[in-house]
Amino acid sequence: MKKVYLDNNSSTEIDTGVLNVMMPYLKECYGNPSNLHCFGREARVAIEQSRDQVARLINAKPEEIIFTSSGTESNNMAIKGCLYASDSKERHLITSTIEHSSVIHTFEFINEFQLGRTSKLGVNRYGIVEPDELKKIITNNTILVSVMHCNNEIGTIQPIKELARIAHEKNAYFHTDAVASVSKLNVDVKELGVDLLSVTAHKIHGPKAVAALYVREGLKIESLIHGGTHEHGLRAGTENVAGIAGFGKAAEIARQDIINNTSEKVKILRDYLETEIKKRIPEIRINGHPTDRVCNITNISFAYVEGEALLMNLDVDGIAVSSVSACTVGKAEPSHVLKAMGVEEKYANSPIRFSLDKSNTREEIDYTIETLVKIIERLRAISPLYKPK
Amino acid sequence: MKKVYLDNNSSTEIDTGVLNVMMPYLKECYGNPSNLHCFGREARVAIEQSRDQVARLINAKPEEIIFTSSGTESNNMAIKGCLYASDSKERHLITSTIEHSSVIHTFEFINEFQLGRTSKLGVNRYGIVEPDELKKIITNNTILVSVMHCNNEIGTIQPIKELARIAHEKNAYFHTDAVASVSKLNVDVKELGVDLLSVTAHKIHGPKAVAALYVREGLKIESLIHGGTHEHGLRAGTENVAGIAGFGKAAEIARQDIINNTSEKVKILRDYLETEIKKRIPEIRINGHPTDRVCNITNISFAYVEGEALLMNLDVDGIAVSSVSACTVGKAEPSHVLKAMGVEEKYANSPIRFSLDKSNTREEIDYTIETLVKIIERLRAISPLYKPK
Repeated sequence: MKKVYLDNNSSTEIDTGVLNVMMPYLKECYGNPSNLHCFGREARVAIEQSRDQVARLINAKPEEIIFTSSGTESNNMAIKGCLYASDSKERHLITSTIEHSSVIHTFEFINEFQLGRTSKLGVNRYGIVEPDELKKIITNNTILVSVMHCNNEIGTIQPIKELARIAHEKNAYFHTDAVASVSKLNVDVKELGVDLLSVTAHKIHGPKAVAALYVREGLKIESLIHGGTHEHGLRAGTENVAGIAGFGKAAEIARQDIINNTSEKVKILRDYLETEIKKRIPEIRINGHPTDRVCNITNISFAYVEGEALLMNLDVDGIAVSSVSACTVGKAEPSHVLKAMGVEEKYANSPIRFSLDKSNTREEIDYTIETLVKIIERLRAISPLYKPK
Repeated sequence: MKKVYLDNNSSTEIDTGVLNVMMPYLKECYGNPSNLHCFGREARVAIEQSRDQVARLINAKPEEIIFTSSGTESNNMAIKGCLYASDSKERHLITSTIEHSSVIHTFEFINEFQLGRTSKLGVNRYGIVEPDELKKIITNNTILVSVMHCNNEIGTIQPIKELARIAHEKNAYFHTDAVASVSKLNVDVKELGVDLLSVTAHKIHGPKAVAALYVREGLKIESLIHGGTHEHGLRAGTENVAGIAGFGKAAEIARQDIINNTSEKVKILRDYLETEIKKRIPEIRINGHPTDRVCNITNISFAYVEGEALLMNLDVDGIAVSSVSACTVGKAEPSHVLKAMGVEEKYANSPIRFSLDKSNTREEIDYTIETLVKIIERLRAISPLYKPK
């Protein structure tokens, strides 16, 4: 059966060049990079080379890159790291209502254990945080503002530069989860003006379970995982040498993609998919901002159709998409992102995220459209609520 | 040049069978295991199979296994997880003076942020915690006792069963770091009577950056990394699918090694190395218990010789060993383990850990002995303190 993978925001295929770089560290170069002997030294070289490559992708210095095991860990480390390092009495932290579960649940942890005071910024109907809202709730006791760069479900791009500026005016730090934006946008920590930024390898054709946190030079945060002297003493644990080496190569390729404007090709394909769906299927809703959106995501709600049913039907025909973020699967709740945007009920339970990649083809998109049209007709035909116009 | 790897407590070579199991998840099976479509489901199957294999290795139930990114993370999660989950007013935690840096620094974090009260158990001259010492300091407010199963530097085996029994008498939980014992000893969580136990893949011929925490059924701990619903909601972050699959296979092989009593072969080789060194090199000290010790470690101090100088000289001749734990490299301090054991100064700065593996040969050990004898003679000859008898 034909297989069409349109779930690249859940995970991507490891690039062959990336895997080639990883292989020696899964075979003969098995030393622990903390060791002083030759086995350790060759592993150390791989890590430092990768640190260079990842730093270059986001315009940081190598010493500002801390390797972690996931975007989730990077987000936890950024937020809890600032919290514990702060000597402020009130310790006020601000985030938005549309963050990834790793940020949301870290804030819930802070609330539950009364480690600080937290506030949440709402979003407009496009899922965008308005800078004026931040101005209203930020105080002199705010230590950190954490707002994601691009939303992982709908792709909307946040005005990070402006939000970071407002945070800095109050001497608060600014963190952004850039997991969904890196490789799609030119992510530049200096240009954005952020203090902390999370990236992960497996969304940019690197391996799973390796990620990084950018920590601006001079900023002191507390470790999340305590122990040895790894990662400048900030993140203990034997390094994922093969994974880190692969992440470096993936970062190098992603940088080349930015230079080559590969995202434009993806955007054309995404726009084609979106336009055809709009043309051929009535009563749908495109979620997210029409233009301020990453190139590879379209999130569409189909009225009278359950997202999960649609996903499973597409799967039967070999098409892989997501109904909600992979990280919230198993929770029978509508998307918190659409809820925050005030999406009407008719559309709130049925969002499907198509997340494309540079490797997708026009033929795959055509197949997806044809298949989708048939499935929607079939599912609506059996829906008690659907009345064809 | 001949290369002899005698640093298997720092890291081990990935077994070919393990790598074969990992490869599909580094290539075509790139789905996110949280996804419902076929790409996700095949990844999920790999994780659950591995959970079964790892559980079987330590006689646990699959649902008692939580995958993490390192032994260090498992130790952090066990200790902080119990701490945050406790509603005790005093929150007293006990550990020993010879733990891995991940336990030591987690306890220091608890002290620094006044999250609980901590105590440390000393050890006898063999590096063994005496159960009577625990009886003296444990109180009704003790929530957790954490003592490692085998010490990673000297290999000494702790009386875990007895220590856990004492902890339970006071309704405290018991955690053990079994990173250095799994695959060398038959580690059985029921037999040991522990509530939490840490294991890691890369010390048993699995990949780096994948580990597990055993959490006894019914025990509730707080997450260390908050976010999605992964790992029964206990450890968020996209799973290291390839790494976890490899860990499962490594656990299966380790179990077979236990059944085949492979450790006996390693012990014979280790004992031969130790005996020959004792015979041929004067003024040495074997650190650790003569018999209550894992099969693969011998930790030896050579008077008048700096450990690091010896390590580098052995490296030049292709022999890889450690002077201190890989996780404390870069800290110019004598081993905290030897310090705790009260080792006299003459021997405290020069320990070398030889950690063997089933793949080592008699020829390799012979080459090591010959090389070592020459290097020690050379280094002592230039030492201002050394006076040959």
